[in-house]
Amino acid sequence: MTVQTVSLNKSHGGTQGVYKHASLQTKTEMTFSVYVPEHQDGVRLPVVYYLSGLTCTHANVTEKGEYRRACAELGLIFVAPDTSPRGPEVPGDPQGAYDFGLGAGFYVDATELPFAQHYRMWSYVTEELPQLVAANFPVDPKRHSVMGHSMGGHGALTVALRLPDRYRAASAFSPIVAPSVVPWGTKALAGYLGNDEEAWRKHDTIALIEDGARYSAFLVDYGDADQFLTQQLRPELLQAACEKTNIPLTLRCQAGYDHSYYFISTFMSDHLRWHAARLSA
Amino acid sequence: MTVQTVSLNKSHGGTQGVYKHASLQTKTEMTFSVYVPEHQDGVRLPVVYYLSGLTCTHANVTEKGEYRRACAELGLIFVAPDTSPRGPEVPGDPQGAYDFGLGAGFYVDATELPFAQHYRMWSYVTEELPQLVAANFPVDPKRHSVMGHSMGGHGALTVALRLPDRYRAASAFSPIVAPSVVPWGTKALAGYLGNDEEAWRKHDTIALIEDGARYSAFLVDYGDADQFLTQQLRPELLQAACEKTNIPLTLRCQAGYDHSYYFISTFMSDHLRWHAARLSA
Repeated sequence: MTVQTVSLNKSHGGTQGVYKHASLQTKTEMTFSVYVPEHQDGVRLPVVYYLSGLTCTHANVTEKGEYRRACAELGLIFVAPDTSPRGPEVPGDPQGAYDFGLGAGFYVDATELPFAQHYRMWSYVTEELPQLVAANFPVDPKRHSVMGHSMGGHGALTVALRLPDRYRAASAFSPIVAPSVVPWGTKALAGYLGNDEEAWRKHDTIALIEDGARYSAFLVDYGDADQFLTQQLRPELLQAACEKTNIPLTLRCQAGYDHSYYFISTFMSDHLRWHAARLSA
Repeated sequence: MTVQTVSLNKSHGGTQGVYKHASLQTKTEMTFSVYVPEHQDGVRLPVVYYLSGLTCTHANVTEKGEYRRACAELGLIFVAPDTSPRGPEVPGDPQGAYDFGLGAGFYVDATELPFAQHYRMWSYVTEELPQLVAANFPVDPKRHSVMGHSMGGHGALTVALRLPDRYRAASAFSPIVAPSVVPWGTKALAGYLGNDEEAWRKHDTIALIEDGARYSAFLVDYGDADQFLTQQLRPELLQAACEKTNIPLTLRCQAGYDHSYYFISTFMSDHLRWHAARLSA
């Protein structure tokens, strides 16, 4: 598992790197970014995985997320993978839409052809990437957490619910919480997993909770000026599911904020503090 | 002077806007960004102008500068113009180089053909844009300051030296301080102003100081891993000129930092605190 360095830049006292590698899961070259704060030699730091939303690569949050200052203060490593396999050999949306295929892997292992060969983002973000990061960066293998935005918020919540012992904290900005019932989600889950909706349930936060998955606590922020709120995100469904099952949920409606990185960057340090408190406990 | 809104996004409690207008100076459409922090109705806020470097538009600092958090805390409006006129009618570098023409206006009013018609960035940033901003945003007309990066650091220092009563504070990241003697600068000044080097002196920080211009105090940061340091930036020339003339200069060499926004964003809040202290005095 060799990792090639694309760029290294000192920032906020630490090092922002971008790396690429040949992925065994996706059978493509994958790019990801890692911020490592200044730290003493030999120390192993907790690591936060950030899963991005539709159309994004590692670069969006790396450039616009404003996470480095807080990670430097809190001693957190921050890892941002891409959102799908990419390359001329990777099939995309037949109509070239932004919400399926390239940039829209939805954090599932596809079972449908022609997507099954490359679209292995569940195994990539939960298995291959953590192993690669553990082998190449000073991370404490027992202190992982996960966060994400929109499609990546869906990824973060489903990852946490299915691997609660691995990820000690989980939070999301504007997550898609019920992909089985919203337009973005039904298109993606049908396309990658086929029409048997039973197979969708382990990639749907609400269905996972209905089926018995539990988690220690979630922090979720959304903006009330988010254009996708009522049709695609549906935070009220998460609130109802958590209330019914006593999963502690801090759900905050942020007045005037939209779906953009201007929103995410505003509350990023709040989220990182949430993660740091649970990763150091 | 009508301004058209391109986008508005709530961020860090305030509003990040992007605007465009038909410029009388450049005779093109110009785009700029303005961040207005949350404030009480009727209050007029101090304003910081940020001048960007080669190849940049308003967007680079707006997306990567990490200034909104500090501006919100300190109550500062932050204005970021483009670095040159743009459009199919605007002549650029004959060889398409990045360091002259489009994205490289060098904050001068060109006198040479064919650049003189559109390249009026000195008058744009010191006259037209401040008037436009004053007419459309809640700025205190007596509390302006200026900062910039690289070519924009050159812009900020020359603007401050020539208009010290207007701009109460000035700072720069990695500025070009002696364009008359470095490759980027000589190409630009000869191209825009012609071969008479006398005309270059009012657009050269070192020459302005030699010719008697003075300023209250400068804050300048550069990184010792900046690839342009010794050939293009030459901070030692600024240090010598300020020492000789008793201009207070806080010149900081930041170990390991390069020329990128990863560097700028690290020290942005320091600079904004410097500005705020002088704008509130």
